[in-house]
Amino acid sequence: MTLKADIRTIKLPKIQDPRGNLTFIEGGQHIPFDIQRVYYLYDVPAGEMRGGHAHKELQQLVIAASGSFDVILDDGYKQQRYTLNRPNIGLFIPRLVWRELENFSSGSVCLVMASLRYDEGDYYRDYQDFKQAVQIPQSAPGER
Amino acid sequence: MTLKADIRTIKLPKIQDPRGNLTFIEGGQHIPFDIQRVYYLYDVPAGEMRGGHAHKELQQLVIAASGSFDVILDDGYKQQRYTLNRPNIGLFIPRLVWRELENFSSGSVCLVMASLRYDEGDYYRDYQDFKQAVQIPQSAPGER
Repeated sequence: MTLKADIRTIKLPKIQDPRGNLTFIEGGQHIPFDIQRVYYLYDVPAGEMRGGHAHKELQQLVIAASGSFDVILDDGYKQQRYTLNRPNIGLFIPRLVWRELENFSSGSVCLVMASLRYDEGDYYRDYQDFKQAVQIPQSAPGER
Repeated sequence: MTLKADIRTIKLPKIQDPRGNLTFIEGGQHIPFDIQRVYYLYDVPAGEMRGGHAHKELQQLVIAASGSFDVILDDGYKQQRYTLNRPNIGLFIPRLVWRELENFSSGSVCLVMASLRYDEGDYYRDYQDFKQAVQIPQSAPGER
């Protein structure tokens, strides 16, 4: 069994130029949501770990804008590790996926596009709560 | 005479944590526009120069997500230089401002939030065209 099919890396445009490279992202165009919120992690000590949560509704695109780090995704059934180290490769994380970030390189920048504004109520911060939520058997249409 | 009053640096939220710092931006909340497009410049050779254009309608917030660089703004009357070197300080650039970026440090990342999708027709790429556009005397209300 693999992770949810909608988890995927997305190759973003890269305009190459001897004066520097440029990557751009437009909501609804390169990613399947509008960009309501952008955040970035920086000054992360080398080898540090972050994350450890899932979202009920939020979708995200995670990018190593500088340096590298690993993202460990868990859909409640299986885990998979993604190493991000290219500014034009984003990792799309749909709703209901537990994520942890680790193995940050020195000077790395983790850039995230988010589909919703901040809402503490959208978080699962306890792994067991998350696992229970995703593993509840779905009722068939006739049972609703 | 100073530059247009609406050019300004914006102090963004910074959530400090020994595991790394986090800065976030929500459209319409920390900046006066919705985020339609995000782009970033990277792999810029140290000391390199970019930019040299203005926008008819586009508004932007420019951030040094890593490293540092200078932004030289020109409203058609006067120039001013801004050194960006903090991930939680953004430079808000309204429409009709000529910008050049230079003095990039090695490994710097220039992160930009933009109010509109890409539109080549929104650019002034010739400084004289730009200057002519912004210096046209405005007609008084009674003359319209």
